Amino acid sequence: MSHEIAILGASGYTGAELVRLIATHPSMKIAALSADRKAGMDMGEVFPHLRHLNLPKLQRIEEIDFSQIALAFCALPHATSQAVISKLPRDLKIVDLSADFRLRDPAAYEKWYGKPHAAPELQKEAVYGLTEFYRNEITGARLVAGTGCNSATGLYALRPLVQAGVIDPDEIVIDLKTGVSGAGRALKENLLHAELSEGAYPYAVGGTHRHLGEFDQELSLVAGRQVAVQFTPHLIPANRGIVATVYVRGDAKAIHDALHKAYADEPFIVMLPEGGVPSTRHIRGSNYVHVGVTADRREGRAIVVVALDNLTKGSSGQAIQNANLMLGEEETAGLTMAPIFP
Amino acid sequence: MSHEIAILGASGYTGAELVRLIATHPSMKIAALSADRKAGMDMGEVFPHLRHLNLPKLQRIEEIDFSQIALAFCALPHATSQAVISKLPRDLKIVDLSADFRLRDPAAYEKWYGKPHAAPELQKEAVYGLTEFYRNEITGARLVAGTGCNSATGLYALRPLVQAGVIDPDEIVIDLKTGVSGAGRALKENLLHAELSEGAYPYAVGGTHRHLGEFDQELSLVAGRQVAVQFTPHLIPANRGIVATVYVRGDAKAIHDALHKAYADEPFIVMLPEGGVPSTRHIRGSNYVHVGVTADRREGRAIVVVALDNLTKGSSGQAIQNANLMLGEEETAGLTMAPIFP
Amino acid sequence: MSHEIAILGASGYTGAELVRLIATHPSMKIAALSADRKAGMDMGEVFPHLRHLNLPKLQRIEEIDFSQIALAFCALPHATSQAVISKLPRDLKIVDLSADFRLRDPAAYEKWYGKPHAAPELQKEAVYGLTEFYRNEITGARLVAGTGCNSATGLYALRPLVQAGVIDPDEIVIDLKTGVSGAGRALKENLLHAELSEGAYPYAVGGTHRHLGEFDQELSLVAGRQVAVQFTPHLIPANRGIVATVYVRGDAKAIHDALHKAYADEPFIVMLPEGGVPSTRHIRGSNYVHVGVTADRREGRAIVVVALDNLTKGSSGQAIQNANLMLGEEETAGLTMAPIFP
Amino acid sequence: MSHEIAILGASGYTGAELVRLIATHPSMKIAALSADRKAGMDMGEVFPHLRHLNLPKLQRIEEIDFSQIALAFCALPHATSQAVISKLPRDLKIVDLSADFRLRDPAAYEKWYGKPHAAPELQKEAVYGLTEFYRNEITGARLVAGTGCNSATGLYALRPLVQAGVIDPDEIVIDLKTGVSGAGRALKENLLHAELSEGAYPYAVGGTHRHLGEFDQELSLVAGRQVAVQFTPHLIPANRGIVATVYVRGDAKAIHDALHKAYADEPFIVMLPEGGVPSTRHIRGSNYVHVGVTADRREGRAIVVVALDNLTKGSSGQAIQNANLMLGEEETAGLTMAPIFP
Repeated sequence: MSHEIAILGASGYTGAELVRLIATHPSMKIAALSADRKAGMDMGEVFPHLRHLNLPKLQRIEEIDFSQIALAFCALPHATSQAVISKLPRDLKIVDLSADFRLRDPAAYEKWYGKPHAAPELQKEAVYGLTEFYRNEITGARLVAGTGCNSATGLYALRPLVQAGVIDPDEIVIDLKTGVSGAGRALKENLLHAELSEGAYPYAVGGTHRHLGEFDQELSLVAGRQVAVQFTPHLIPANRGIVATVYVRGDAKAIHDALHKAYADEPFIVMLPEGGVPSTRHIRGSNYVHVGVTADRREGRAIVVVALDNLTKGSSGQAIQNANLMLGEEETAGLTMAPIFP
Repeated sequence: MSHEIAILGASGYTGAELVRLIATHPSMKIAALSADRKAGMDMGEVFPHLRHLNLPKLQRIEEIDFSQIALAFCALPHATSQAVISKLPRDLKIVDLSADFRLRDPAAYEKWYGKPHAAPELQKEAVYGLTEFYRNEITGARLVAGTGCNSATGLYALRPLVQAGVIDPDEIVIDLKTGVSGAGRALKENLLHAELSEGAYPYAVGGTHRHLGEFDQELSLVAGRQVAVQFTPHLIPANRGIVATVYVRGDAKAIHDALHKAYADEPFIVMLPEGGVPSTRHIRGSNYVHVGVTADRREGRAIVVVALDNLTKGSSGQAIQNANLMLGEEETAGLTMAPIFP
Repeated sequence: MSHEIAILGASGYTGAELVRLIATHPSMKIAALSADRKAGMDMGEVFPHLRHLNLPKLQRIEEIDFSQIALAFCALPHATSQAVISKLPRDLKIVDLSADFRLRDPAAYEKWYGKPHAAPELQKEAVYGLTEFYRNEITGARLVAGTGCNSATGLYALRPLVQAGVIDPDEIVIDLKTGVSGAGRALKENLLHAELSEGAYPYAVGGTHRHLGEFDQELSLVAGRQVAVQFTPHLIPANRGIVATVYVRGDAKAIHDALHKAYADEPFIVMLPEGGVPSTRHIRGSNYVHVGVTADRREGRAIVVVALDNLTKGSSGQAIQNANLMLGEEETAGLTMAPIFP
Repeated sequence: MSHEIAILGASGYTGAELVRLIATHPSMKIAALSADRKAGMDMGEVFPHLRHLNLPKLQRIEEIDFSQIALAFCALPHATSQAVISKLPRDLKIVDLSADFRLRDPAAYEKWYGKPHAAPELQKEAVYGLTEFYRNEITGARLVAGTGCNSATGLYALRPLVQAGVIDPDEIVIDLKTGVSGAGRALKENLLHAELSEGAYPYAVGGTHRHLGEFDQELSLVAGRQVAVQFTPHLIPANRGIVATVYVRGDAKAIHDALHKAYADEPFIVMLPEGGVPSTRHIRGSNYVHVGVTADRREGRAIVVVALDNLTKGSSGQAIQNANLMLGEEETAGLTMAPIFP
């Protein structure tokens, strides 16, 4: 059986990635696509790589008939999402890819996003979308909040370790490198090819990146006390892929064991043998996550490296994985394509 | 039903691409992988992006039991292929991805490859693997020769036009730009990142590229007389993708019509509206081909632009498309994944 | 002696390139920098790579005192330039880098730029800035029009050949590949890294690019009759560099001889031996031009390949070369830095 | 007056970079170039970007007459360098760019390079070439050891801080990102464009990179006790540039002050205002170093970011800076070209 799917905000990269993945999904069918400013256009005009597909035209959200829609993906900008979702049918299943429902605590939301949440009751309802850790809740959820792509990468390294108590939660440094598509299709000078190609640099240095709100929330939860990591993202001249190099205190063997145990049955998390080093080139375009652990030359210290594709497992692939659960489908449906290399 | 498949020469890019595509193919199963110098290794060591797959270990060709193999893909180097295939079981279906069986004329082979063919009887048997033009022959073939990736790109622009007589066959210029993966995983100085990134340049200038043998063969065949195009490939700093800009003499409308008619029922060839311009970013990682036609400001001249992914439609995807036909499967099986963008 | 220099429109790439080059110029000193929307800012904020230099703050043009300025470079947008220059002191030497004064014929200007020229008397006065062909005129000029970067590249291949009569002026195809900085620092979707990286595609297909106006003007001039080339530019994923592959009819030897003769005493034009092939990697960041000629396999046809850096020899380096002449300095002053590779 | 210069090992990237820089140096002249396997070739064949220069042919080292040579740059592979330098005239000034003379302690050399040093007396004589910290010693030295490019980057962040005692020397994490040219022109699979482009990954994880020997040596020296940093280099898809993100414990203001004081009179070190963030795009092709300091959200922690060009300030530019001192020239001679951007 095929579920009718709507994608709200289909003219951005995560929207296009949803279409790419659903195009060969065995039990999802795209019934509606929205893009306010591009309403009336063909998706193939906005994203010519999708022009071979037979897709509905882009519409305004108000024009969509949700009566037959089984699930909607919201790939709208932050802040817009909470306003739009508030007005959608109350029984519509929703996977939101924005930042609007990631933080459960209204105060934390206000701290990181600079204004009070406009839909606090929805915020309370939303389940944090890191499938591996919230599988049961997601399966029964109506509203799932897709995670930050950086947060997902770091949390795959850290959440099981903090939970297992094998690392010191006060001594965590996450140095993360991300390709440019995570910043979306926005017209910003620093995203121009001529500005970025051949360059690399940190941004949001000093602990100002909004994804820190998710690190704080999830790690404090499993630690049972407040955890505040250090986190520096870097922009690198690549389109896709995030690699996080995470410096922790603890025994490398115990760390590897804890991660291995946590991910033993996970279909998309690939543990490398000890000393193995992930790379963004090895997960590009796929829903797979590579995780490696190496002991440092200084005793009691280790480095955990995690790589994933920000648009797939970090965003749209994760969203579909969650939607599969919400719709009662096989969790891996439509998501087992191998990475593309070179 | 699943066909058992062998891939000979699995440690190169076309071999890896075959594995990537077959990994989600509904009716093929990889039963054997060969790589002489890397025999004994796991495919995941040679290509870590494939480490999540449960694949047979790399073997030497002699070690493979072909009795259960329905079809073998040969992704071996040129010249090696003809030697290896000569020794394979006579009833084994084979899709060869090398240059060894592309030219039907032994003299042409010797001219372009510098020595006589070692298996002239096989050369005679082989069918040229451009599916859209040899579909019937391929369906019944035992040995199919995968085309050059540059030749495929140019022939998608030209073969129907020469056949329809809507362009002057003596006035054809093919200016082609290719990403670097077409050159394979060979350790050559000009393929180093530091040598290629930020650069662009023509090579094999003046009509010396071996793929000209295929242009001559196929275009002369449909013209009914000798045709000799001008052809200059360029190396550009991208991993995948070929775009050919083809300058022809003829009426743009008639040219668009001829191509539109030729490709009307083709599942993988996407004709753009007149004036539409293909780009390699719109077909990356997929089996789709984009074709566009634009009239030049000078009357009676037009430009045909074709883009495809050299590793997919230009090589391994084409090979699987042909294998599907040879095995009696749906031609598009396993090949309808959308392009990856960005 | 040091000449005081003003740069109008210093916040774009050609402005920054002028500053980079003048920073080590032996007899130029930057006395004023303008950028309307960024007036009041430090150049180091707009272009951090220049932060080590001691530069005047960005001003509005009206604030500049031109009394001590020996020469002004105008790196303003097209159309703006003609308005601004009309109001500058009549005795101020000016090198304009925009398209505003490249075409001598008012009708041609209107045809390619879509509206009448606002300063036709200045248009008449301006000298076309291709130094090698207008050296004498430039030396005595007050207003020099920098050429299009694509036009410069193609004209280095063609102008001496048409003039010498060694090629057929009716059968010229210029297939050109350019890096992205030629499009400037404008916020356009197609210039985003995620849109361009890993891609390559033609644009302005069919003879619609404005630089064709310059080809028509210059080649018709030396031919003594109308010449209309075919020209297709391509955008490639690189920051700098243009390579033009020019298909011509004529004897390769005669063509090489004609170019060799034309450029024998040129300080910046490097003729390669016959069959030599230029590459953008070999001229990056420099004022040098590489020129190669190869015979095609078809008799009477040849390919001329030219590579230059669009921001240097194609724009700001050319501008300084012309300014050197206008100021009575050594033509090569400040311009002999070697290309940067890798 | 012009000093005659020899470059031994001119066929690698650091050799080519030396030629690029000396080409416009006011008081150096290249008198001899060596490259054993390419002896007899023109430099323009090996590096076409240098073909406009009038350079001596490549020779074997034995063929060079050192009698008129004022200084030799050795850009030879590690281990080769110590053997070659042992046989050069004892009064020849030498700047070695290899790793052979960076470590003063023979035991440390053996530990990091796996075998005893072959010229221990030369090792004793050599001065560590980080100009800013060894200026006096370098001025009077005969043999100067160019530093590792990674070491230089990290030491610019750390050496003044450890010396001033404003950070905890036991809690230092250096997460460094480097372009690919640092790995040289070697034919290695991981350096191919198709392997590296679009990817990013750490290597030598866990404290195994040889440049750690330099960190240990220099930081222990100024600390007056053993210091062992954590250090992870990453390969990113860019040709040039290193950016190090250094996590330290200490007061950000005190750290900024200490660095500001240390570099106040340095011609090539540019301190950014507090919170300023360096990028490799802003120093490419130049001898400048950008240094920034930002406080972390966690009190008592700060991030120091340093960017430099590995081939220039990290290697060949540094070498020329040192050679200028050794030859009694202005320290900045030939090195003040601005970075190239974009």
